[in-house]
Amino acid sequence: MTPSKLYSWPGSGNGYKIRLLASLLGIKLDVVNIDRRSDEHHSAEFLAINPRGQVPVLVDGDKTFTDSAAILTYLAGSYPNPGSIKAPSSFWSNDIAEQAAIIDWLAFAASWIQTGVATARYIRLFHPDDTSASTESIVARATVKGHKSLEILQARLLANEWLVLGRPTIADIAVFVYVSLAPAGNISLEPYPAIQNWIARIHDLPGFIPFE
Amino acid sequence: MTPSKLYSWPGSGNGYKIRLLASLLGIKLDVVNIDRRSDEHHSAEFLAINPRGQVPVLVDGDKTFTDSAAILTYLAGSYPNPGSIKAPSSFWSNDIAEQAAIIDWLAFAASWIQTGVATARYIRLFHPDDTSASTESIVARATVKGHKSLEILQARLLANEWLVLGRPTIADIAVFVYVSLAPAGNISLEPYPAIQNWIARIHDLPGFIPFE
Repeated sequence: MTPSKLYSWPGSGNGYKIRLLASLLGIKLDVVNIDRRSDEHHSAEFLAINPRGQVPVLVDGDKTFTDSAAILTYLAGSYPNPGSIKAPSSFWSNDIAEQAAIIDWLAFAASWIQTGVATARYIRLFHPDDTSASTESIVARATVKGHKSLEILQARLLANEWLVLGRPTIADIAVFVYVSLAPAGNISLEPYPAIQNWIARIHDLPGFIPFE
Repeated sequence: MTPSKLYSWPGSGNGYKIRLLASLLGIKLDVVNIDRRSDEHHSAEFLAINPRGQVPVLVDGDKTFTDSAAILTYLAGSYPNPGSIKAPSSFWSNDIAEQAAIIDWLAFAASWIQTGVATARYIRLFHPDDTSASTESIVARATVKGHKSLEILQARLLANEWLVLGRPTIADIAVFVYVSLAPAGNISLEPYPAIQNWIARIHDLPGFIPFE
């Protein structure tokens, strides 16, 4: 079987979500690095693969998925847990109420996490010298949203070891990545011990790989 | 069977997505209107139902879903098409690659559409007198993102009648709502005839109800 192609770049948090799940499930991917500095994601060749001009992208035969939530779903739903032959893996589900419960947190990752901790980190890392009023106001808003997101998450994780279904799913992977990177955007995880413990549990999953 | 409770308010575009799907599938919902002006969505009572403090929320027995993408999935996956007894409806799928294809566009709605046309509309409608530099800069960014989203969508719909699977799915519903409302944020749909035709096709679906 030809491995699926994952288009990404090493620093992409969303690309890391896919590499992490693949590692946890023992899925071999053919990783194609896109050169962000030369703007390769806006080249005609790449836009033909993904008109949204973003990474990660997964191409499996004639199928293409262009958002990390869709790629996580596809891989977790198509592949079994290591040592099993039954798809989907335990990171996804065949049950509709369980699928919807997972998607509820994929959506939290796409909205709350993306516009909160991920945005604060992005600006601090990639535009550290931009101190214009409009950028400062974006950072301020993202920081408020970031802390609000972490409060919601902390409350959830005080009552649950994993976000949904009592087991690690792609919901945890989707939310975990930018939450664990929040300190790079000057948002400390110190006030959120339940989140820190959950991050430690994810680090302990067999097959875990760190963000590079 | 007790109908599911939908918490929303009449002007919510995301709430309309759920009411629209329910109408298309003939699902009876018990709609509970939340009073936005009195900040009811931030009341202790509502936060106990949805800690994110947002509408729409769907409560079905002991299950609660707090994001429109999850609610659309749950309803479309649990209920059959009118006149059929086989769930899921044709707005969702049992096939993992098809599920992921749908989620790819639910994600587009959550990121591109939400931070583009929906944000431009939100500010124009709810903060019409805010002409501060930082708000103007958010509107300018949302307008650029909005047009870019519409270009991506227009290209997709030139080649496809529906976003995925050759039939209307919850992907179309999730993307359609704020796209059709784009003109309220001063983003015209005039340059995008394929989008206008797709909107007309959605209006023609049996059971369609308009946004109020």
